[in-house]
Amino acid sequence: MSELRQDPTTEEWVIVATDRAKRPHDLSRPQGVSRGSLPYDESCPFCHGNEAQTPPEIARYVALGGHRDGWDVRVVPNKFPALTPEGTTERRKEGELFRHTDGIGVHEVIVENSRHDLGMADMDEAQLTLILRAYRDRYNALKTHPYWRFITIFRNYGESAGTTLEHPHSQLIATPIAPTYLRKDYDLAFRYYDTMGRCLYCDLLRAELADGRRVVAETECFLVFHPYASRLPFETWISPKEHQPSFGLFPEAMLGDLAKALKTTLLDLKEALNDPDYNYAIHTAPAEDEEDPYYDWHIRIVPRLTIPAGFEMGSGIYINTASPEQTAEFMRSRDQSS
Amino acid sequence: MSELRQDPTTEEWVIVATDRAKRPHDLSRPQGVSRGSLPYDESCPFCHGNEAQTPPEIARYVALGGHRDGWDVRVVPNKFPALTPEGTTERRKEGELFRHTDGIGVHEVIVENSRHDLGMADMDEAQLTLILRAYRDRYNALKTHPYWRFITIFRNYGESAGTTLEHPHSQLIATPIAPTYLRKDYDLAFRYYDTMGRCLYCDLLRAELADGRRVVAETECFLVFHPYASRLPFETWISPKEHQPSFGLFPEAMLGDLAKALKTTLLDLKEALNDPDYNYAIHTAPAEDEEDPYYDWHIRIVPRLTIPAGFEMGSGIYINTASPEQTAEFMRSRDQSS
Repeated sequence: MSELRQDPTTEEWVIVATDRAKRPHDLSRPQGVSRGSLPYDESCPFCHGNEAQTPPEIARYVALGGHRDGWDVRVVPNKFPALTPEGTTERRKEGELFRHTDGIGVHEVIVENSRHDLGMADMDEAQLTLILRAYRDRYNALKTHPYWRFITIFRNYGESAGTTLEHPHSQLIATPIAPTYLRKDYDLAFRYYDTMGRCLYCDLLRAELADGRRVVAETECFLVFHPYASRLPFETWISPKEHQPSFGLFPEAMLGDLAKALKTTLLDLKEALNDPDYNYAIHTAPAEDEEDPYYDWHIRIVPRLTIPAGFEMGSGIYINTASPEQTAEFMRSRDQSS
Repeated sequence: MSELRQDPTTEEWVIVATDRAKRPHDLSRPQGVSRGSLPYDESCPFCHGNEAQTPPEIARYVALGGHRDGWDVRVVPNKFPALTPEGTTERRKEGELFRHTDGIGVHEVIVENSRHDLGMADMDEAQLTLILRAYRDRYNALKTHPYWRFITIFRNYGESAGTTLEHPHSQLIATPIAPTYLRKDYDLAFRYYDTMGRCLYCDLLRAELADGRRVVAETECFLVFHPYASRLPFETWISPKEHQPSFGLFPEAMLGDLAKALKTTLLDLKEALNDPDYNYAIHTAPAEDEEDPYYDWHIRIVPRLTIPAGFEMGSGIYINTASPEQTAEFMRSRDQSS
């Protein structure tokens, strides 16, 4: 029999339909589909040597000792931005019901290395540390701007995850509005704090640790797990073990350990599921609440293994065909056998 | 410059990034990808002659004058149901934070005709009328059950829309919980009614009619339009012109006109965008509020033309690369030229 589970962070219900489940392994990306890319692509604006093809660089990062290409990580404005910094946030009405504002905001690209074919799962931890530092620096540089209410850092990997640019990159979008969708999660966490005097996300972490069945890995500072009410198979959270509301404020000393957790997680998913397409996004407290006690930032990785369809669209309820206990166990058993 | 638009029914914001827009036509499904199916497939449980391959039939519909196969539309239990009727709705706790209940509910399939290769866009209006009657009958049969709090009727068309069964079919899922996701929309509409003394969805329809730029088609009783804050290109709503809270209560006399609106809409999308994959779902007031003044049922059709990615996942804000004014104009101009 399947099970309905409630997500304590959203109060949304999820159907965990294990009777319909394929074995975790069967969710892998089909064999024989190759990514097929070369170290350099002359038409790629992110490759070394093609730096002039991007808009003017915002920042560059070079590993200790320098890099033969002059940079390891570059941050550049998105050439086809969804939002641009010009305009105002004033709301304008069209008739009585419709409201809009200028599409103002910031849309940046973090070019993750100078090589076209070196995916994030295969980079070394030093490189990942630079990427995470770039994320954090850009987050902190933008958060003080009076217009940018919310900053989303995310990564799309593979065509079915919505990217057509092969060169490893992440993106950042700052919006002048706080997403209604997330405000609900914040409100819920805020009320939980009010009631319990504890952070919901800290309690969640303790509960996952105590239960153990959904835990995949652990580093010094981070826990990697498949959450209780996962909406999709192999949804993976990387969460700090100590209370840390904002991604912007997470300590320099922990960058290396986060790089390690991210590297392990992405490489394990790549090997376990034949290099699946995925998205990830960093969830964080709003900038104005960055020292508040009610939220913990974390990274959510969602491989594209199944397709949410009309039922999800109509009801908002997801059908997950594999339980997080199954998928976490599958990931752990791999680690032991390899 | 792009634009941020607020959806009056959800208060969510959408980025309409027309600068990034392809022309509406360029969003079509690639040429040369064929659906390739035959009138009969011996392994298909929904084909005429294979009726014994489904669980026992719940209902069948036959057009006036009868059908050579003995039926035109069949309703059967889903052979691999996400939810099943056994169990209780009692919530059980796992530790302090996690809550679950039995996966109880109903999961049915509406087999839309006896032929494997006759898609909904190509059926005649009489056949569509039978399908819509089956929807409504099942909705009304299930709504009185004390456990089923919410009934979703939906259709997945094509692999990228989440179906692997080619034979034309829709589905129905009844859940013992009211989706948190939709409760927000109901609350918003309820508060609007409280404040304005009018139905938000009726006002929305009047606003779309008055503006006109997003209207695609009109029948005697229904309006077809691309809503102001569409999340995805070519999102299409079919809405009753008069106030009608519940799909279950919509009058028998209007079935034929809805069939006409649905037929026109699906055929136009098929011809305009090279037979795209799509999902649709029927949105309706909760069964207990079916005579209340605050909501109008409607059908939302969402073609799978672009892929929501990490930004949408992280922020809940969608980037729509074509404005509904553009896409509605594109659909209207086709109608005139054909």
